[in-house]
Amino acid sequence: MAGGGAVKVYGAAISVAVSRVLTCLIEKDVPFQLVPLNMAKGEHKKPDYLKIQPFGQVPAFQDENITLFESRAVLRYIAEKHAAKGNKKLFGSNPLEKASVDQWLEAEGQSFNPPSSVLVFQLAFAPKMKIKRDETSIKLNEAKLSKVLDVYDRRLGESRYLAGEDFSLADLSHLPAAQFLVNSDEMIKEAFSSRKNVDRWWEEISHRDSWKKVTEMH
Amino acid sequence: MAGGGAVKVYGAAISVAVSRVLTCLIEKDVPFQLVPLNMAKGEHKKPDYLKIQPFGQVPAFQDENITLFESRAVLRYIAEKHAAKGNKKLFGSNPLEKASVDQWLEAEGQSFNPPSSVLVFQLAFAPKMKIKRDETSIKLNEAKLSKVLDVYDRRLGESRYLAGEDFSLADLSHLPAAQFLVNSDEMIKEAFSSRKNVDRWWEEISHRDSWKKVTEMH
Repeated sequence: MAGGGAVKVYGAAISVAVSRVLTCLIEKDVPFQLVPLNMAKGEHKKPDYLKIQPFGQVPAFQDENITLFESRAVLRYIAEKHAAKGNKKLFGSNPLEKASVDQWLEAEGQSFNPPSSVLVFQLAFAPKMKIKRDETSIKLNEAKLSKVLDVYDRRLGESRYLAGEDFSLADLSHLPAAQFLVNSDEMIKEAFSSRKNVDRWWEEISHRDSWKKVTEMH
Repeated sequence: MAGGGAVKVYGAAISVAVSRVLTCLIEKDVPFQLVPLNMAKGEHKKPDYLKIQPFGQVPAFQDENITLFESRAVLRYIAEKHAAKGNKKLFGSNPLEKASVDQWLEAEGQSFNPPSSVLVFQLAFAPKMKIKRDETSIKLNEAKLSKVLDVYDRRLGESRYLAGEDFSLADLSHLPAAQFLVNSDEMIKEAFSSRKNVDRWWEEISHRDSWKKVTEMH
């Protein structure tokens, strides 16, 4: 996947935000090199890394003439720069489709992500780190997530994917957190599968080749 | 500000997300009509409105051939559609500048907004609604906000604005929440003014004509 002119992605494939960027690069057939960061050794807080990622988070992204952070900004940059490469419909085919993709990508970032990121930590990472689950927080965020899935279920009754008839950045951006959630908790798996349209959508997007390749890197 | 071909913005100017869109429209010289929603009467939860804004929030945006929700997606749409109008530098002048704007706009949405939105509610709205302040939450979110402002202060020591040398969507997107915060709490006002570069930046962006016009609508 690497190569001389490959773009660099800093971080571990297991990270939700890193996975999001890798899936996009695979969809767009853009060669990349994954550069591991030893976070236990604090490599993400060292001055050289903070020049690329001032918040000390992952991923950071680097190609020939730019460094970027914030996974969703990286997705848009890759999809625009490589518009004619790989999956050409990831960011829509005209300004109106593009605005629809952007709107649902923002919905992921602003509505789906806040409860999901708490739940991914509580349900998937905390047990491995032997941290006690916060049951109050889990209940609260499951309720928030359910409301978001209700909106998605109505939307996905009108169109095959969130932004329209084609798989886009908006769907892609949900994959990493959603996969952790359905894998680690029966109640959340049920929250997806009990909603007819969400269930169909999840089956479809989670079986894409790009996503399977990323999960194999986990 | 209205007119026959004016775009419609649904919601009240006092809302943070509505203000963000209005400021952008004024910067871009795009005529608009603000359509009030009576949220006390539940107008934001009625089927007709949910067709435009499925989450039942504000703003919703409508122009001749599209309806959109999510304020930051609306900002990008307006700036791209009206690239040659009004302030032409809001979304950068080339793909690299645009990516930088997008990255810092995402930083606002993902890092600045989560603590700020809690603090705006606790410090500006809760007192008017006679809701008791949650002091634990205020402390926690003030600490989170301080860390974000530390990153901004370093960044703003390198460039005049967040994304580079020009005022952009990334700066604009901070105005509404930041204004509520510096107006309603001495400690937060101090958090802005005690950081030299943040202080200079805030003085500059909060005195823009576009923003003054929006605050007069509050």
